[in-house]
Amino acid sequence: MSTDIVERVLSGDRRALARMVTLIENEAPEARDYLARLYPQSGRAQIVGFTGSPGAGKSTLVTQVVRELRRRDLRIGVVAVDPSSPFTGGAILGDRIRMQELAGDPQVFIRSMASRGSLGGLAASTRDVARALDAAGYDVVIIETVGAGQAEVEIVRAAHTVLVVTVPGMGDDIQALKAGILEIADIFVVNKADRPGADQTAAELRMLLSLAGKQPKSAEVWRVPILKTSATLGAGIPELVDALFRHRAFLSESGQLTQRNQRQVRSEVLALLQHTLGQRLRSAVAEDEWQRLIDEVVERRANPYSVAELLARRVGLGDSKEDAVSSREGATSAS
Amino acid sequence: MSTDIVERVLSGDRRALARMVTLIENEAPEARDYLARLYPQSGRAQIVGFTGSPGAGKSTLVTQVVRELRRRDLRIGVVAVDPSSPFTGGAILGDRIRMQELAGDPQVFIRSMASRGSLGGLAASTRDVARALDAAGYDVVIIETVGAGQAEVEIVRAAHTVLVVTVPGMGDDIQALKAGILEIADIFVVNKADRPGADQTAAELRMLLSLAGKQPKSAEVWRVPILKTSATLGAGIPELVDALFRHRAFLSESGQLTQRNQRQVRSEVLALLQHTLGQRLRSAVAEDEWQRLIDEVVERRANPYSVAELLARRVGLGDSKEDAVSSREGATSAS
Repeated sequence: MSTDIVERVLSGDRRALARMVTLIENEAPEARDYLARLYPQSGRAQIVGFTGSPGAGKSTLVTQVVRELRRRDLRIGVVAVDPSSPFTGGAILGDRIRMQELAGDPQVFIRSMASRGSLGGLAASTRDVARALDAAGYDVVIIETVGAGQAEVEIVRAAHTVLVVTVPGMGDDIQALKAGILEIADIFVVNKADRPGADQTAAELRMLLSLAGKQPKSAEVWRVPILKTSATLGAGIPELVDALFRHRAFLSESGQLTQRNQRQVRSEVLALLQHTLGQRLRSAVAEDEWQRLIDEVVERRANPYSVAELLARRVGLGDSKEDAVSSREGATSAS
Repeated sequence: MSTDIVERVLSGDRRALARMVTLIENEAPEARDYLARLYPQSGRAQIVGFTGSPGAGKSTLVTQVVRELRRRDLRIGVVAVDPSSPFTGGAILGDRIRMQELAGDPQVFIRSMASRGSLGGLAASTRDVARALDAAGYDVVIIETVGAGQAEVEIVRAAHTVLVVTVPGMGDDIQALKAGILEIADIFVVNKADRPGADQTAAELRMLLSLAGKQPKSAEVWRVPILKTSATLGAGIPELVDALFRHRAFLSESGQLTQRNQRQVRSEVLALLQHTLGQRLRSAVAEDEWQRLIDEVVERRANPYSVAELLARRVGLGDSKEDAVSSREGATSAS
């Protein structure tokens, strides 16, 4: 059966893929082995991340982009992620339901992922789900996140191409755009561009991007385009899809695709190691001992640094010769 | 000399404290031992975090709060942290310079911390600097961050009392308030309340807080107050300081101070362990081997999961019996 599901996913079986995605989302123990087996077949899709402020119309835009990609006869996977709190989810759910219009198309696979567990866990699950869709043969995999904070930045970091969606009249808000967002944006979209102020918003963005060194003259550096769309009117969508493919071509031809992949693999391996550390800690230290150590620190009978050293030794991390403080013994004697 | 600096910090020597803060900020190898020795003397100060959107007037507000606390004859430490990119720093620097007016007062210690290295590193350094000020005998230690993203949430998480500063007329923005910010806010401040729309912004905040369960009837749960201030006019500042102390009293009397301290110690110890993992990894795996492993994954000759397992074994994390996948051998044979 374990052979079965991986092979069925690779052969394009949608039900097997849906089950695989559920196993990944639930962090089922067998999921990692399945992912290891899917991995060699991944790496063909263009992974595209959509992020930006709530209310920027991302879901409608994604729906239009999917339609345009279908016109170009491509198979599309969509992973929609909401890392925010449940009580902001109402309007978003409506958008997602609209997106489900696409779900009747057998060449489109859409999955919403709810926030559960840690942010790191969500970012990892999203990356793994995108990888499964990639291995299953979807040509473009879109990761859409709700919001524009650090959480969303983490999530779309796994993409080849990151689109940041804004709207006209952001005014002061544009100042508040997280530096992190500017740094990850490969394409900026001013959506709802039929509203007043779209040109001004585009000009302000161009200025910010210039300041950040993202509007270079050199052809060796990607010049972040600022595109205007109206997702509800369907305007500017073919141009946006063209820009996606232009970015993919730029990455390949400039050699930056390899660099980006290397950076992503490095951070993924580090995240997997941290996950292992957490597992080892849970099996090496019983909850009541944890609680006792924490109490000692809270009551100033121990300090956090020596407790961390004690636990590092317990999980096997404690024998580095370079560790200058490892000669101190015992967590509770340090104060 | 190492004995010297810790004792001088504890005796109230400002120059020794300034040097200690620099050692912490630079992650000097001796800093952790110093911190372990300062730790038993910490735990007396009220740590207060100020966060909120850029342009909300946080620095002016902090300046006024410090003045009011001085009127009440308390010693104040301020740690001002800017995790954002350099090119947004201009206006902020101006505010910080204004804050330096206070720096002539020997009972006030102010330190700006620049962003360098990882976010986790910055959050840890900020916490450790606040701890040094606490041990040095400052009654209130204020941590001020610029911005309102995940980075700022991480940084102020070390505080006992978190103030979130907004301004009137945030309009749609209020929708965009990160759920994380709502969850950590102990006190909301509508600053610049002399401008139109302050009451409406306060009402909108109250509604959001109600939805989030932060406006309970029960006296056992903290009811997040929404205060109006005008930092430039000096209005509402004594009431804000009263609210700070009310929150401190609530934490002590309800037993929530202990819970909060336990939670913070737990996350601090975990962060220290992750830091140790990073150090062990750097000493166990040479950079060229790292690069070779990453290349194998990028080229699909290995997968990230098996490379992470290989590295886990190398740093000593690999022998958990619970680890279901540890029986697979070798990173490069898995594909």
